Parts: sequence; C-alpha cells; structure tokens
Amino acid sequence: MHELKISPLAPERFPSTMPVDGVRLHVGSSVDSYGDRPNILLASFARGTVAAGVFTLSRCASAPVEWCRKALRNPLVGALVVNAGNANAFSGRKGALAVDRIAAHVARNNSIQAPEVMLASTGVIGEPLEPEPVLDVLEKITDGPVADFEAAAGAIMTTDTHAKGSMAVFEDDGIQVPIVGIAKGSGMIAPDMATMLSFVFTDMAIDKPILQELLQRQVESSFNSITVDSDTSTSDTCLVFATAKARKRGVKPIGSMDDPRVPAFENALGDVLFDLAMQVVRDGEGATKFVEINVSGARDSQSARKIAFSVANSPLVKTAIAGEDPNWGRIVMAVGKAGEPADRDRLSIAFGNVLVAERGMRAKSYSEQEASQYMKNQELQIFIDLGIGNGTARVFTCDLTHDYISINADYRS
Amino acid sequence: MHELKISPLAPERFPSTMPVDGVRLHVGSSVDSYGDRPNILLASFARGTVAAGVFTLSRCASAPVEWCRKALRNPLVGALVVNAGNANAFSGRKGALAVDRIAAHVARNNSIQAPEVMLASTGVIGEPLEPEPVLDVLEKITDGPVADFEAAAGAIMTTDTHAKGSMAVFEDDGIQVPIVGIAKGSGMIAPDMATMLSFVFTDMAIDKPILQELLQRQVESSFNSITVDSDTSTSDTCLVFATAKARKRGVKPIGSMDDPRVPAFENALGDVLFDLAMQVVRDGEGATKFVEINVSGARDSQSARKIAFSVANSPLVKTAIAGEDPNWGRIVMAVGKAGEPADRDRLSIAFGNVLVAERGMRAKSYSEQEASQYMKNQELQIFIDLGIGNGTARVFTCDLTHDYISINADYRS
Repeated sequence: MHELKISPLAPERFPSTMPVDGVRLHVGSSVDSYGDRPNILLASFARGTVAAGVFTLSRCASAPVEWCRKALRNPLVGALVVNAGNANAFSGRKGALAVDRIAAHVARNNSIQAPEVMLASTGVIGEPLEPEPVLDVLEKITDGPVADFEAAAGAIMTTDTHAKGSMAVFEDDGIQVPIVGIAKGSGMIAPDMATMLSFVFTDMAIDKPILQELLQRQVESSFNSITVDSDTSTSDTCLVFATAKARKRGVKPIGSMDDPRVPAFENALGDVLFDLAMQVVRDGEGATKFVEINVSGARDSQSARKIAFSVANSPLVKTAIAGEDPNWGRIVMAVGKAGEPADRDRLSIAFGNVLVAERGMRAKSYSEQEASQYMKNQELQIFIDLGIGNGTARVFTCDLTHDYISINADYRS
Repeated sequence: MHELKISPLAPERFPSTMPVDGVRLHVGSSVDSYGDRPNILLASFARGTVAAGVFTLSRCASAPVEWCRKALRNPLVGALVVNAGNANAFSGRKGALAVDRIAAHVARNNSIQAPEVMLASTGVIGEPLEPEPVLDVLEKITDGPVADFEAAAGAIMTTDTHAKGSMAVFEDDGIQVPIVGIAKGSGMIAPDMATMLSFVFTDMAIDKPILQELLQRQVESSFNSITVDSDTSTSDTCLVFATAKARKRGVKPIGSMDDPRVPAFENALGDVLFDLAMQVVRDGEGATKFVEINVSGARDSQSARKIAFSVANSPLVKTAIAGEDPNWGRIVMAVGKAGEPADRDRLSIAFGNVLVAERGMRAKSYSEQEASQYMKNQELQIFIDLGIGNGTARVFTCDLTHDYISINADYRS
C-alpha cells in the first residue's frame, strides 16, 4: 500500500473536545489491512437520543445508506456502527443481509430495536461484507474500555492522512452544550472511493424534525460546497445525534423553529460541519493548495453555485493552480461552460486582491508578476463577478497534482 | 516550452487526400512562438460556395465565434482565415475590431463581402489579437504557392502532437465527390486551451440549409461524443464548405432532404467528422489509452448520454484506466452520480468481453486476472447496461495520466 504523508494543509492537531453526555464510544479492529489501527466504531446512545441524517444522492447507494434512510423514520436511535475497509456497496442481497445481521446483533446487545441502529461502511466496493468478523469485534468491544473522539475519528478512516474532528459549544443561558463532530474523506487508493462520512454528537435536547431541518440547511454551505474531483461516493453519510442529556443540566428542549435559541444552536452546528468539510478538502488526495471560489453577481444563487462548481471541478483550472499559474483564461472557460447566464463583457475576475480581468477584458491594472506572486500562497481565493444579478455562492476545492494521479492510478491496495 | 512527443495513439501518417475543386489553400507564419511552423491558414473558395457551422456552447465565446455565427446567415462564403497562437477570446472590443479588420482586408483582396469571410482563432486567451501581423501574412501568401491539406492541418495546430486529417468519398452515379476534413485539438499547454477546430471541404453541390442539418446531426455522434477532460473551449468551431464545383463533373445539386442521395452523402460527411473526432481524443493530452464507453438499457438516449459522459469525465475512472485497474466500483460510482434513473440491482458492467458485474453484484464468472489482462490493451471498451429501458449512447475518451498534469501544470509557455 502507498504510504501517505500527512496533507500539508492538515490542521496541526486533533482539537481538544468536551465529553458529550449520553454518548459511549468503543473501537476495535476486524481486518489486517489497516495494520493495528482500529477500523470499527461502535457508538451507544442514551435512551431518548434522536438523530438526523443526509446521504449521498447516488442512484447506486450502498446497503447501509439504504438501511439508514429507512431507519431514520424511527423516532429514536440507540447505536451507530461504522466499519472501514469494505463499503458494502454494490453487494446485492448479501449486502442487505449483512446490514440486517449487524443491526440485529447490536440491537439485542443494547436492548433496543434493530431500526434504532444506524450503520455506515466505507472502503472497497463490490466485495460482499462478511458480517461475522464485524460481529466478533462488536461482541468484544461493547463492554471494553471507552474510546475518545480522536480514537473514534481514527477508526473510520480509510486513506485519510489524519483523523478529523471539530467542536463548537452552544451556550444556553450560561450552560455549555458541546457539539462534537468527526469525519473521514478524500484520501483514496484504488479501489477505495472518496467516501465522506461524518458523525456529530451533542447532548442538546432538540426535536428530531428541527434537528433534521438545521442539518439540511447547514450541510448546504459545508459538505455540499466542497469538491475534490467531482466524483460522488455511493456511501456519503452525515448523521447528527442529540442525546437530550443537557436537560439534566437545566437546558430546556428546543421544540419549535421559533425558539429564540435556534439561530445560535444552528450556528454552532454549522461551525462544526463547516470545519469538518474544510478538513476533508484539505485532505483531498494530492492537495497542496486550498482554494476558495467566490461567485457574485450571478442571476441567482443556484446559478452562482453551478458556476462556482464548474470552476472548482475544472481539471484545467485545478492544474493551473497546482502550477501556480494565474491562468484566468481557464476561469473564463469554466464560467462559459457552466451553461448559466453570463455576459462576457460584464465578467470580472480577481485572484485574492489582484484584479485580473474586468468587463470582459484583461484589467488595465493587471500585473502578471503580482498575480504570479499571489498564486504561490498555500491558501487561495478566487473572486468571479458576473455583473448581471445578485446571486452569490462560495465553494471550496483543492488543486490537481501528480500525487492525485499517483494515489489513484499508480497503486492498488 | 514543453517538448511534446507524438501521441502513442496517433495514426501512422496523414491520410492521402484528393483535391477539392474550388478550394485554394495558403499558409504562412506570423509569430515566432511556433518556430518556423506556419500558424496562419487562408482558404479561398470559388464563387457559389456555401457553408454550415456549429460552435461552442460557451457563454463566453470568442470574438471570431460571434462573428461566424452572424456571418453564416449570409447565403455564400468566400474565404476562411484561421490563426493559431492567439484565441482572440475575452479580448473585448479590441477583439471584435481585430475580427472586423481581418475580414474587411480579405474581402477586399478577394472581391467579396466581409460577412463572406469566416474566421477562427486558437491559442492564448485574454491577449488582444493584433491584426497587423496577420494582415501582413495574408497579403504575402494570397498570391503565393498553394498548400495541401496536410500543410493546412499543420498551420492550425497549437500543441497538437500531429496534424489531423481525414477523407471520405461520396459516389454519385460513378462520379467521385471528395469530402476532406482537417482538425486540431486537445494537446494543450498553459495558458492555451483544448480548443477544437475542424474544417471540412467538399466540391459537392448542396443547399445550405441541408448541409447545416446534416452537419448538426453528424456532429452529435462525433465531436459532441468525445471528452478529454470535461472542459469546453470558448472557441470550438466546426465549419463545412461545399463549393458546388462537382456540378462541372455532372453531379446534380442536392436541393431537398428527400433526395435519395442524402443518406450516402451524410454517411460520408459523418465518416470524416467521426474520424477527426477520434484523432482529437487520441491526441488528448497525456493520453495512453483510447476508451469507448457504451451505455445501453437506459431510460432513453439522453439519459444514456448523461451516464456515458459521467463515466467518461470521472477522474477516478480515468485514473483507474491509466493504472490498468479493472476498478468497476468506480464505474458504479460514476453511474450513480449521474443523477439519471438507474436501478442498482439491474446494472451490468463489462470490460471488453469480461463481464464484471451483473444485477447489482460482482458477476459469478468474474476473474480479476482476466479483467486485469484486458485492461493492458491500448484500446478499451466499457459496456454498461442499465437494464431499465432502450436508451443507448456511445462516447469516447482517454485516460488521465501524469503527463496530463505535466502538460497543464508544470510548464508555462
């Protein structure tokens, strides 16, 4: 297996996290492929925990994704099981049976119903997931020592170069309510995929439909605003678990979208999701540069988003960035190919604070030297103004380098 | 400048071509950037020549594309001027003025109207095109020696690794009518783009609206069915010129779509366009493998096409092919992300004649060794059957290699 260096864009360390009351974590190892590293995460939740989730839009979703979509209709959730190494995707009836068996087993051990068990898998596609080794590990770890969030984040990695975590604190009249998230994604080796998994834990008390709505809104500007290579996994999963244990500390449940605490809670949740999403982009395979693409002046926000992704996904733009080349002609190309309303003669482009093009021509003030200097930065901002409306969008990506090819073409696990 | 080796997928030589009565070609050199190689093509057409054209769908089309779109409304065409080195794209009013001046100059020299001059440019974006050096060359070459199609194909190249040409012969009651095409595209170096230009010449007599319809139909299965990196140029242009000189040899004009000769003529035109399109893919930057993607059983043809392009444009699929890895999980991923109707449990996938997946699972007969062996071929066929309808599509692409990154990130011209 290809040895992966830690991404140059990774944060210095895993963040320190507060414990989340009502969440118990265990990790274990069921395969040899990751050496001694655990690849199984079991999270058990206190009675009364609710969950919200968003999933891949793939038409070929994995067995666990299909399971979770149905299971989420249940009012409560009692456990989460994640395995790394086998995605249990495109595994037919056998895949669905493996999901059934794991859920039934965990339900029995935890005295809950099977649909109260959430499942996620990441790794090889098309190999049937054998449930027995997973069940053996679950049996062993359930009553073993508890793990912290960093260990949990480590146990869901495939070819990530580091464990990803984030915490925000929602303050309710002086009472601190932690929101802790972990994620994996974007380091990949054949035949693995850039599956993105993220799990967020809080002891906030909040009604399930409200949690679902806040999650969906906040996923838009975080996980749904990043791209590494335009490819979408069959297994992408983001789940939020709220144990309601903060009630013990005097926090009243959020039972309505009109609750005045909603905006602050939503912001805190959004901060965690955003931070995790940025860590996923920064760990994009082969990434050496982190790129923020800001589109303004588009006809509407949806149009701005399509244009931003057209730029963020363009191999020509991404290779130019890797080459530190202020090649704004490729930005024009990517804007043009998006198929969205655009008027060449109103288009302006800037790299950071270097204006390169305005009103459909190279800017009078443009200095190639200044622009080239800017492109040497590890963090880049590209501004594109369409000049025809009020639509804005911001998406995040990384550059396209030789290491992307090496990771995805040169090595097989 | 990066030295480009001729693509390993290139044809052995430029095809031998018959002369096309009514077409006079001249080439010349206006810049130093291509060494001694000519970068200007002037084609003059006999009185009575008609033209048809299709252009980039980019919302930021180049000045010459905008010119041609309007000029094509004219019944007749008298000349074509192509320059390589400067795309005259995103060049504002100056770009439009340069187009005006060149067209006026050629019109004067050839005693035709300015809108009877077609123009195409390829090369750097955002640099104003200075008309004077182009006019100087045109002045010099107009009365100079005539060039052959191979020289013409050479004069429109940017970073192509070889000149591209093709010929088909339409037989009308024993009389041979040549259809000769040239094209450039897909070898690119920063800050150039993968602009695709193609020009087809025939002395057939055919009404302009019929020629336009046949061109549009045949472009769908040729130039509109290829992708190298999903990026669309601001300058893509395909023009067909019919001089009507075959009338001298006894060929009657095609004046109606009901003319029984239409299918044979359309086939011959389609053969030329298809052959040129394949040469463009095979010269895709860094390409080492030529890949045909066949989708069947989709809801309809449009859906099949979207799925085929989702696979053909997937960086994960293209890097797996470069690595000779029969990674069908990535095909599943690309089918799933297309967003088109698909039923995982009816999906079948084959690499050549190696069935790898059927009904949503790995095929019982699957042999990894056999599949790996197949992937070593330079020409690959991927078959994807959705099993839900009758829609089919066929698109063509190449692999994604280190050389793509080198050509587009490591070097600046």
